[in-house]
Amino acid sequence: MEKDSDQLAETTCNMEQQTNQQERDPESNSLHRPLLKRNLTLSSSPLALVGTKVSYIESLDYEYMMGFFFMTGVNFMLTLGATLLVVFLAPTAAGPGIPEIKAYLNGVDTPNMYGAMPMFVKIIGSIGAVAAGLDLGKEGPLVHIGACIASLLGQGGPDNYRIRWRCIRYFNNDRDRRDIITCGASSGVCAAFRSPVGGVLFALEEVATWWRSALLWRTFFSTAVVVVVLRAFMEYCKAGDCGLFGQGGLIMFDVSGVSVRYHVVDLIPVTVIGIIGGVLGSLYNHLLHKVLRLYNLINDKGKFAKIMLSLAVSLFTSACLYGLPFLASCTPCDPSLVDSECPSTGRMGNFKQFNCPKGHYNDLATLLLTTNDDAVRNIFSTNTPSEYRVFSLVIFFLLYCILGLFTFGIAVPSGLFLPIILIGSAYGRLLGMAMGPYTTIDQGLYAVLGAASLMAGSMRMTVSLCVIFLELTNNLLLLPITMLVLLISKSVGDCFNPSIYEIILDLKGLPFLEAHPEPWMRNITVGELADVKPPVVTLCGIEKVSNIVDVLRNTSHNAFAVVDNQVVPAVGQVSEVHGLVLRAHLLLVLKKKWFLQERRRTEEWEVREKFTWVDVAERWGTIEDVAVTKEEMEMYVDLHPLTNTTPYTVVETMSVAKALVQFRQVGLRHMLILPKYHGPTVPPVVGILTRQDLRAHNILSAFPHLERSHASKKGR
Amino acid sequence: MEKDSDQLAETTCNMEQQTNQQERDPESNSLHRPLLKRNLTLSSSPLALVGTKVSYIESLDYEYMMGFFFMTGVNFMLTLGATLLVVFLAPTAAGPGIPEIKAYLNGVDTPNMYGAMPMFVKIIGSIGAVAAGLDLGKEGPLVHIGACIASLLGQGGPDNYRIRWRCIRYFNNDRDRRDIITCGASSGVCAAFRSPVGGVLFALEEVATWWRSALLWRTFFSTAVVVVVLRAFMEYCKAGDCGLFGQGGLIMFDVSGVSVRYHVVDLIPVTVIGIIGGVLGSLYNHLLHKVLRLYNLINDKGKFAKIMLSLAVSLFTSACLYGLPFLASCTPCDPSLVDSECPSTGRMGNFKQFNCPKGHYNDLATLLLTTNDDAVRNIFSTNTPSEYRVFSLVIFFLLYCILGLFTFGIAVPSGLFLPIILIGSAYGRLLGMAMGPYTTIDQGLYAVLGAASLMAGSMRMTVSLCVIFLELTNNLLLLPITMLVLLISKSVGDCFNPSIYEIILDLKGLPFLEAHPEPWMRNITVGELADVKPPVVTLCGIEKVSNIVDVLRNTSHNAFAVVDNQVVPAVGQVSEVHGLVLRAHLLLVLKKKWFLQERRRTEEWEVREKFTWVDVAERWGTIEDVAVTKEEMEMYVDLHPLTNTTPYTVVETMSVAKALVQFRQVGLRHMLILPKYHGPTVPPVVGILTRQDLRAHNILSAFPHLERSHASKKGR
Repeated sequence: MEKDSDQLAETTCNMEQQTNQQERDPESNSLHRPLLKRNLTLSSSPLALVGTKVSYIESLDYEYMMGFFFMTGVNFMLTLGATLLVVFLAPTAAGPGIPEIKAYLNGVDTPNMYGAMPMFVKIIGSIGAVAAGLDLGKEGPLVHIGACIASLLGQGGPDNYRIRWRCIRYFNNDRDRRDIITCGASSGVCAAFRSPVGGVLFALEEVATWWRSALLWRTFFSTAVVVVVLRAFMEYCKAGDCGLFGQGGLIMFDVSGVSVRYHVVDLIPVTVIGIIGGVLGSLYNHLLHKVLRLYNLINDKGKFAKIMLSLAVSLFTSACLYGLPFLASCTPCDPSLVDSECPSTGRMGNFKQFNCPKGHYNDLATLLLTTNDDAVRNIFSTNTPSEYRVFSLVIFFLLYCILGLFTFGIAVPSGLFLPIILIGSAYGRLLGMAMGPYTTIDQGLYAVLGAASLMAGSMRMTVSLCVIFLELTNNLLLLPITMLVLLISKSVGDCFNPSIYEIILDLKGLPFLEAHPEPWMRNITVGELADVKPPVVTLCGIEKVSNIVDVLRNTSHNAFAVVDNQVVPAVGQVSEVHGLVLRAHLLLVLKKKWFLQERRRTEEWEVREKFTWVDVAERWGTIEDVAVTKEEMEMYVDLHPLTNTTPYTVVETMSVAKALVQFRQVGLRHMLILPKYHGPTVPPVVGILTRQDLRAHNILSAFPHLERSHASKKGR
Repeated sequence: MEKDSDQLAETTCNMEQQTNQQERDPESNSLHRPLLKRNLTLSSSPLALVGTKVSYIESLDYEYMMGFFFMTGVNFMLTLGATLLVVFLAPTAAGPGIPEIKAYLNGVDTPNMYGAMPMFVKIIGSIGAVAAGLDLGKEGPLVHIGACIASLLGQGGPDNYRIRWRCIRYFNNDRDRRDIITCGASSGVCAAFRSPVGGVLFALEEVATWWRSALLWRTFFSTAVVVVVLRAFMEYCKAGDCGLFGQGGLIMFDVSGVSVRYHVVDLIPVTVIGIIGGVLGSLYNHLLHKVLRLYNLINDKGKFAKIMLSLAVSLFTSACLYGLPFLASCTPCDPSLVDSECPSTGRMGNFKQFNCPKGHYNDLATLLLTTNDDAVRNIFSTNTPSEYRVFSLVIFFLLYCILGLFTFGIAVPSGLFLPIILIGSAYGRLLGMAMGPYTTIDQGLYAVLGAASLMAGSMRMTVSLCVIFLELTNNLLLLPITMLVLLISKSVGDCFNPSIYEIILDLKGLPFLEAHPEPWMRNITVGELADVKPPVVTLCGIEKVSNIVDVLRNTSHNAFAVVDNQVVPAVGQVSEVHGLVLRAHLLLVLKKKWFLQERRRTEEWEVREKFTWVDVAERWGTIEDVAVTKEEMEMYVDLHPLTNTTPYTVVETMSVAKALVQFRQVGLRHMLILPKYHGPTVPPVVGILTRQDLRAHNILSAFPHLERSHASKKGR
């Protein structure tokens, strides 16, 4: 306790927890526990504090203890609920889900990611985790929820209860599925920040791999619908019937009230914010990487370990949120404010009384004992230069740095946006206070800039963050300096490490294909890559069933080259690449038992009779599900109708760098490698390249000398 | 004249032309010509008008005639100057330049587009044309100017006086040149609308063909710099020393003053605006297409015809701008306004007196006799429901429809944005007036929505327009309905015809490669395409000089296949495709006279000694510039070191649709077609595909049956 709060004459006990208590009118105090009169006389000497500690603790109110236990208990239960859901029903619902969506749009599917169960767990779990007062946001989960809804709508419902209408089948292909999931993700961002244009740009800048103008306009359409629906609900909820929903209208953290005046000299603090944001952001990425690796070890120990970890974080969070405000000193209310505004005892309000006497407020309690959204709103508040003490903001900043690092990896749905905004806004406001005499920019705007800088330093987005912050704060005149801050932070951060999502992608082992080939990829050809791979598996155009079953059982390839041996009039005996056949289609043939007694080509109508295009688009399980009798094993299959006769190809002399550009730009799964020379003894296909073959990490482990030459060049 | 303006007691003669008069303080009337008292008694009967016409014309003030001649004369001279510059110095500077930039980024270079001369003519010409009161904007030209500056910076100055620093050579490749021109274009939009994010999005949505996140962040950086510089100049010009520059601050058409309240029922007028905007926009595109075709015929007649056309449009414009306000009736000023505000006689001010008595203003003169920017600002003005009469707005709308169609094609730098905004805002405000009793949305906002809808209906952009309008008007709450209007207009417009830029691209005959292949392209293979082309020209790895000269003289190809005949141990005698050699590199060899006495391979060091990589990146003129002696003709050239040994390839069985995807996505100029079979009698390369081969129009003219089958399928 500090000196100026020695005389605690009256104390109101307000355990104002965000969502784990009932709706209550902030004006009426009738529900509050009766005020308790106490007389605490604490020694003002620090040495004497030790002596009086025991008596102080003894005299600590029973009500405070009850409040602590109540708050911690409710938080504990909520966290437990969210964790149990995630651990037992849908492990993929943990975390933000954005890296997985990013990987999906790059061509890497994470199983069980977009079903009904992950969506349900994500919704309920996210409500639980946010309500439990954990330091995590609902933004990432909303993006994932948006993607789940989009995926379910696109495929006509959950896997087992699909509606199979014609119009829905239209989406039953990779590209349209990707498009619709992109729309879902951008709608999620739009719903989270009420930022329609920001949502579109987020999808464009951070999530999507392939972009075309049609997609731009589709995502724009979906966010437009989201914002119109949001607006309609806000209209409906105006009377306050819907709790916290709709607070702040379409603009969540409005700072348009303050006029922005800045001069050339203000570029200095702006640059400083940018640099610090970049350094802090990359430091945050670095530390979070370490923590996540530690958590991975813990989480690998089993479900029980996961649950324990979540609960430990919850207990720690509750203890800090409740305990730390006692360290802060009380501030007298501004006399210009009405009594009901300061100090406030309800859920709302900028000036929480907590343990302070009448007419005073506890600024740290104002920040900690509220929803995360309100905390941001409080720190962003403009024209309030002396609302917060430096000490309180420093504690807030440190606390959220720690919580931000240790909360993200636990097994609940969690977003990264809000934790980073909280840290950033605190340091921004602190910087604003330090700059106070030398600048004309408001402290609240410094907080906004701080939040933006840390976001850019950690997530390395620019345009989308800029628009999201514009739409969050509704201050267009702030735009130029926001842009500068974002650019500086991103540049500084890029000097140290990759963005946080790339780090998570890497930790999750998702084979994400980068846009640009590494420089050393120019020094190796695809032919060399093919040489170190197992030899390519080829099938004949008309193949024996037993061979197909063998190949499917003994390899895990998803595509096989189909080669025909034939005599061409002017050329002579040649072996010709007919194309690529997919594992899924071989399984389809085996399941549908589409066998031939003799070695012959089929007619087109035979094929059309047997298969619909819906069959071809479906997934057909694994080879283990297929039962083939001994007689059938001796029969034949004509693979020609099911073969993709024009796969994209490269010649074996092509450098890996150029092959990678083609692979990624065209959006392929398999690419055939053709030989440089052709002749009777040369096989007509050298190999098949897949995503895994083209990943830098995999190439380097097969060709370690490339890394050395790369490193030595770098060192020079 | 209408009834209520019969008694014209006093008239001030204010030829308030926008830039062709000196700076003048709007408050002081000392420079104005003395007020002339007149008594005009016009009959109110229309029939009697004919009788009094002569006396009316006679009594028309000498001052009015002088004013008309002065204004028309100045406009005439300005137009003449701009046209002469364009016609004689840089014909490429005519028009907006955006379609050419779009084509350049797609891979089609228009000659003399990004030099110092087009830039100079564009800057001076655009100032002349805008000052001449023509109905055209400075936005398109600014985009082109931005691209020119970027290109000049990237190559180190104008063609003949280049700085050849190492750091500048970095940009001397196609990709970086494209990037830097994209940055220039986005900076141009940013400067035109003071809309940094809108500039980035414009470049992304409308201009760029290939997009990657690095480019996003580069364009964002350039617009950030633009906006900071702009801000600094505005700060400097605050005192009003820079004329009209900086008017309105960073927000050009601020409508943030009005609070936006809208309910579900307001969706109806919003939908109506969107639909009308879409229909009008596509109608505008259709008519402009016809006018431009007519103008092309006129402009083809020679330089004199071009100049005459410009001057005729200028005369017509001046006559309309000056004459039409006489048709409007005078409106009494709102008594709440100060005398200096209404009526105003200076350049500024919302209420022009023109021919009206004291205490009255002429609303049509307010709109017509001002800069186009101010006209937009006037129509967008909010909380002024009775400022404009329906009659005046209808005349304004019709006039600008006509001017907008007939001004664009003349030989001066001209942008499309502002004319469309003018038309759109007029019809939007008219619609707002008609809706008046049924809506809560302000008329000024209707004007904004009308402008947005017509833009989307004509240009078919969504996200970028949305952000540009947000940054123009600074009203975030308008965003949801702006989005809806844009989406509806674009959808409606897309039903009728392509966007205006695509129409212009097509008219200019630029071989723009669309993102998506046509459906019928799946029914034709690249082998069939190669069959109808002239046979492929191949060179040997070590080729005779005379052969090279022959090939270069007799063909216009830009790349040639290099084929080696050799004996490979395990395969036997084979002819192998070594790669592609570019015409530019063949010319380089001939110019540098890099010949060999005998048929032999050269060593790598020999090559390195002879050529620097700067040589390889330069352009080397045409074959006509090369002088080769008779002895040299018999010598040899080793093409291997200059050959691109790994060109991208397709097999001849590939469908054109898939080949087109690869061609465009990877961003190629040439693509080799490999044969399906290989053998001693089969050539190792079937053909080379270029952009022209893959254009839908060219394929259809070679294979007319495809169009028929396509059309018959469509008809079904």
